[in-house]
Amino acid sequence: MEYRISDKLASLKPSAIREIFKSLTNPEIIAFAAGNPAAESFPTEFIQQKAAQILREKPVTALQYSITEGYPELRAAVKKRLSEAFGIDGGDDEVIITSGGQQGLELVCKVMCNEGDVVIAEDPSFIGALNGFRSNGAKVVGVEMESDGMNVGKLEKALRDNPKAKLIYIIPTFHNPMGITTSEEKRREIYRLAKKYGVIILEDNPYGELRFGGKNVPTIKSMDTDGIVAYCGSYSKVLSSGMRIGFLCAPKEIISKAVVAKQVEDVHTNILCQMICESFVTSEFYLPHLEKIRELYRRKCGLMLDGIKNCFPENVEYTSPEGGLFVWCTLPAAAELGEFVASALNEKVAVVPGTAFNCDVDAPSRSFRLNYSTPSDEQIVRGTEILGKILRKYR
Amino acid sequence: MEYRISDKLASLKPSAIREIFKSLTNPEIIAFAAGNPAAESFPTEFIQQKAAQILREKPVTALQYSITEGYPELRAAVKKRLSEAFGIDGGDDEVIITSGGQQGLELVCKVMCNEGDVVIAEDPSFIGALNGFRSNGAKVVGVEMESDGMNVGKLEKALRDNPKAKLIYIIPTFHNPMGITTSEEKRREIYRLAKKYGVIILEDNPYGELRFGGKNVPTIKSMDTDGIVAYCGSYSKVLSSGMRIGFLCAPKEIISKAVVAKQVEDVHTNILCQMICESFVTSEFYLPHLEKIRELYRRKCGLMLDGIKNCFPENVEYTSPEGGLFVWCTLPAAAELGEFVASALNEKVAVVPGTAFNCDVDAPSRSFRLNYSTPSDEQIVRGTEILGKILRKYR
Repeated sequence: MEYRISDKLASLKPSAIREIFKSLTNPEIIAFAAGNPAAESFPTEFIQQKAAQILREKPVTALQYSITEGYPELRAAVKKRLSEAFGIDGGDDEVIITSGGQQGLELVCKVMCNEGDVVIAEDPSFIGALNGFRSNGAKVVGVEMESDGMNVGKLEKALRDNPKAKLIYIIPTFHNPMGITTSEEKRREIYRLAKKYGVIILEDNPYGELRFGGKNVPTIKSMDTDGIVAYCGSYSKVLSSGMRIGFLCAPKEIISKAVVAKQVEDVHTNILCQMICESFVTSEFYLPHLEKIRELYRRKCGLMLDGIKNCFPENVEYTSPEGGLFVWCTLPAAAELGEFVASALNEKVAVVPGTAFNCDVDAPSRSFRLNYSTPSDEQIVRGTEILGKILRKYR
Repeated sequence: MEYRISDKLASLKPSAIREIFKSLTNPEIIAFAAGNPAAESFPTEFIQQKAAQILREKPVTALQYSITEGYPELRAAVKKRLSEAFGIDGGDDEVIITSGGQQGLELVCKVMCNEGDVVIAEDPSFIGALNGFRSNGAKVVGVEMESDGMNVGKLEKALRDNPKAKLIYIIPTFHNPMGITTSEEKRREIYRLAKKYGVIILEDNPYGELRFGGKNVPTIKSMDTDGIVAYCGSYSKVLSSGMRIGFLCAPKEIISKAVVAKQVEDVHTNILCQMICESFVTSEFYLPHLEKIRELYRRKCGLMLDGIKNCFPENVEYTSPEGGLFVWCTLPAAAELGEFVASALNEKVAVVPGTAFNCDVDAPSRSFRLNYSTPSDEQIVRGTEILGKILRKYR
């Protein structure tokens, strides 16, 4: 039987990161390639106690069908935190609980884009989001990145050149894969351009709670007086990634359509874990827990940057994140990325080649992504040494 | 701001059942409108113990990112049960765990259908599936139902008339909303036609474990020697609907694309609950638990059919299910469905009007769906009495 796969899926490749993730079950590999939160960051004991309590006290609520919008108490908790910590007060906004931040991104595209419409994205960007857009038949157009965010001149050119642009997709805070943060000035300029060209901004902020250095920069959503920003968040990095709980905060009209789109994807998000999540984020343990994770990643990121400084040759460029999970390194012009990534894996260090994050899947790259949340401290030290040794070939 | 919603979502209405479900939080309403499993069918104590054990013994596996395909041990358990109880031995098939049966249906359409392609469905059919197809830009074409399944002559006509047909969507066992079962003869004929016209059958079997009367009929997937059947199942009716765990069994090539499509929807299904599910279905308690649920629904269905026999006038037709959750009733020609449904709700009995299940959203209906798994025994008796009183107006 020859299967006639739909056009939008036929051209879609599995995420390189997910494929690498499968190989990470090998404990001999130093996993700089993952995007996993540190295992020690999970509040296991709290989850254990709360799961037992919820199943004892509210078993039917926890196990029966629930509403698509999400557990009302969790939605309220999301709104409260968005207001208190992210300046999002949402006059005309509403919140829906999603099955991870990923689902929020995919739903916004499904709601806003017809096949052939354009999503403008940072280049490089998060591959899961780009593929989510492509799975809806949207075309991704990339805008070059600078150290403080998108090149806004090129963003305006992309908006002018693409009258079918419906979304600007952006990870302004601790960008994946680059680890950089878009400056406040650029955020205001991007907002201005979105408004001028009648395009919705999709602000992805899964790492927003993980600032361990530098100064807070306001979310783009907090500037949204025109109802043009859809904002996605996640509990994957601050509670548990396996639970698949995230949220989307957007103007009511977009949310009401996202509810319909979610209904036909999975009816609602796992309700037992929504309840566990709610009990955690409303407990007295949540803020100290966030502080503990920030401290953990501050240390791990510091270790990695120290390793890079000590072991990498000077012709390798790298970013210095103020939060999040990633450092982005760029090889000198003479180096060949594929060869480097293969050499590293041969020495049992897995990194993600920058090509995996390109908006244009066929474009070349000289960069690679390093993650410091998954490996142990010892692995970070040893892994950067090993990479350094390989990199010295390119001097 | 005027939002330009995508064409496929702009026309999609929220499921009438989901909307009715929201009103069901009113405890005064007798809920014949839901499709919820009986609350007493949840193995609460087992889930409680296993959740604690899993979080104690394998906390990182249960809380960290996992693979899109699903928890390997659960996939193995699904394959074993499909082979032992449903005749599905799957030479070239593979299994993926989905976020409820709903996601499996939506993924198969996303993988197989371009915008404008056609899904042929039983008419009436499960609204969640139909909207899932529409959300992918597919067109739904309905085929008239008889008491033993689709009118196969009309199915062939639909296949002939619609060269862009890619899927036949069918709930052959304890159909939702009608409660009927497609005969083995018709299943073989539907398979033959799908093969003849080069179309994939999407067999939806969420109630397959709930047979409480009559004789077993082989699944269409068990007849699949050509790799043309995709089969969806669910743990919503036998373990917990709130957990959102289902599965899709289909030819490898379809599954590999479904994995990519699922990756961009929710990365993977909640892993803690996948592990709880696996420990339950592989335990000694599972088969006795299934028997207990079947016995429960046998009694509840019997109560409802008794109530109908005793209280409904003879000009109201109804089906007599051998399993599943629903009875389908049809009013005499003189009656007006909308008026009846409103009168019933006024008397605090909620039923779903047949119009909610029509393939053609504007088509009329004289039928309504009754559910016997959600209401208490007492409510079934009282509710059928109340409906009977209203129905006598139409004699």
